[in-house]
Amino acid sequence: MSELNILVTIPFDETEKPELEAICPDASFTYCDQDDADEALIAAADIILGNAEVSLIKESPRLKWIHLSNAGADIYTKPGVLAPGTILTNSSGAYGLNISEHMIGMLLMMMKKLDRYYVEQLNKNWADRGQVRSIYSSRILIVGLGDIGGQFAKKVHALGAYTVGIKRHLGEKPEYLDELKSMDELDQELAKADVVACSLPASSETYHLFDAERFRKMNPNAIIINVGRGSLIDSYALCDALNNDVIAGACLDVVEPEPLPTDHPLWDAKHLIITPHASGYYHLPETLKRIKIMVMENLRAYVSGSPLKNKVDMKTGYRDNTAGNILM
Amino acid sequence: MSELNILVTIPFDETEKPELEAICPDASFTYCDQDDADEALIAAADIILGNAEVSLIKESPRLKWIHLSNAGADIYTKPGVLAPGTILTNSSGAYGLNISEHMIGMLLMMMKKLDRYYVEQLNKNWADRGQVRSIYSSRILIVGLGDIGGQFAKKVHALGAYTVGIKRHLGEKPEYLDELKSMDELDQELAKADVVACSLPASSETYHLFDAERFRKMNPNAIIINVGRGSLIDSYALCDALNNDVIAGACLDVVEPEPLPTDHPLWDAKHLIITPHASGYYHLPETLKRIKIMVMENLRAYVSGSPLKNKVDMKTGYRDNTAGNILM
Repeated sequence: MSELNILVTIPFDETEKPELEAICPDASFTYCDQDDADEALIAAADIILGNAEVSLIKESPRLKWIHLSNAGADIYTKPGVLAPGTILTNSSGAYGLNISEHMIGMLLMMMKKLDRYYVEQLNKNWADRGQVRSIYSSRILIVGLGDIGGQFAKKVHALGAYTVGIKRHLGEKPEYLDELKSMDELDQELAKADVVACSLPASSETYHLFDAERFRKMNPNAIIINVGRGSLIDSYALCDALNNDVIAGACLDVVEPEPLPTDHPLWDAKHLIITPHASGYYHLPETLKRIKIMVMENLRAYVSGSPLKNKVDMKTGYRDNTAGNILM
Repeated sequence: MSELNILVTIPFDETEKPELEAICPDASFTYCDQDDADEALIAAADIILGNAEVSLIKESPRLKWIHLSNAGADIYTKPGVLAPGTILTNSSGAYGLNISEHMIGMLLMMMKKLDRYYVEQLNKNWADRGQVRSIYSSRILIVGLGDIGGQFAKKVHALGAYTVGIKRHLGEKPEYLDELKSMDELDQELAKADVVACSLPASSETYHLFDAERFRKMNPNAIIINVGRGSLIDSYALCDALNNDVIAGACLDVVEPEPLPTDHPLWDAKHLIITPHASGYYHLPETLKRIKIMVMENLRAYVSGSPLKNKVDMKTGYRDNTAGNILM
């Protein structure tokens, strides 16, 4: 294999670099922060391990492969970013752990009224807020069963929820789902679910999948969770649905638009918990550790000519399952 | 069996009363709210199913048995409340479901900084707060392994925590505990735990078990959870421990004193989540359903002369295991 320029924007520390470089001893490794990867560095790279500013990639003819440090690959699949033939892989599988815990945290915060109790706490007021709900025995619809949806389903199933999964392509039902349904059955299932947990990538198929009409099809008791991409939900329709009690609540780590401007009406909607797209990144040390393991595994495959794992289908933005995926 | 007066302060509704009364067809049933059970009604009762104001019981010589609707029996074990020979049973087993979910909710709220994000949300501010922690791979010490501690341990074990249980009397290690230790080993275990979850009854043995000295023995990384009785923790010592970073956080549903007065320094302590003893009561409909099942099961046992379940040991305030317990 001729000499390769490998640009690494994932923060490998000094003690970890030798292990990475040993996988491809003839390559030249350049390390920098994602924000410092300028046009020249990107243009010189055969491989980028980590994210890079999309506007600087400009269909670089030299770039053979980019492995993203995140899971949402949508901005890299747009025309004009990657040249045809450049392989795109992502780090789906590293984030499910933290994001699924974040989802359960937001859901329990809402079910147990911990948001309202926190306001009382800030006011130094000891005041009972009455009835609560439980994950136990709730019917939870999981829309999108990738790493995040799968890990969330597994966890709430262990906590006693009745889990129903929705998948584009039906396959074998995993044991942590009580039922598995196809996307055609979404509306019937929405009418029955107490909780609807969404972790779908951004694509033309998922854009505003949740609009005013769909909220009206939901159980008025339902809490919707979104941790995939904000574009899944029409923010204005959600405001109306929450403020008019069409649904019971929303827990969002992603919204449309991001960052949410101070004057956006969503901030004032009732029964809402928002976190600022914070469940991902490297906020949990374990996430970064898993990303590094993935990157090294894929670099080993690249060097040996084996198929890369976690390849992103440029048309759908989903992982392409034919090459195999990393599910940790 | 001669005619019995049974006073019921647990809210059985009209459709449920026939089933209860059928267990003891010769008895006379009186229903009222707990707050409306006056001295005359209590003095006339052979059996009370539900709580009653302790100051009105006055060692009633007629009272043969009282089944509490709650789990914490401490105020009923005090001298001058029940006559010697009056049987005391409680509803331990009904609350573990909701309280264990409440504990996980508070813990994840703190680990994922959802309390801080909620303040940002109230200020309409999209601001990242950095590093988080996970239940997964945390070492969680469970102090008190009754219904609540057991259910909490089972759940966090399913979420990937390493669980260590502390028990007064060692028995067989349940599969959801990675290790089981005796109370003698508390201090060694406190030094290692990332999370310390306490659900102990009030007693002379548990009074201020967590004081300034004990907080100093804890891992500085540790989050303490208390859902048993507030008297377990010296509130002033906890304030100091939190404000001086001796420990990393506290999640409390019970405090000393209750209600916590507006001018108490605990409200201002750092890294603290307080709910107002709200995880119990009938706040979850399933809790009340389980209590009714228990009460009917025990009334059936009483009528047939079988031993009652969930008997409280008047000396320790714990359930007496010899007669069998209800663990749902």
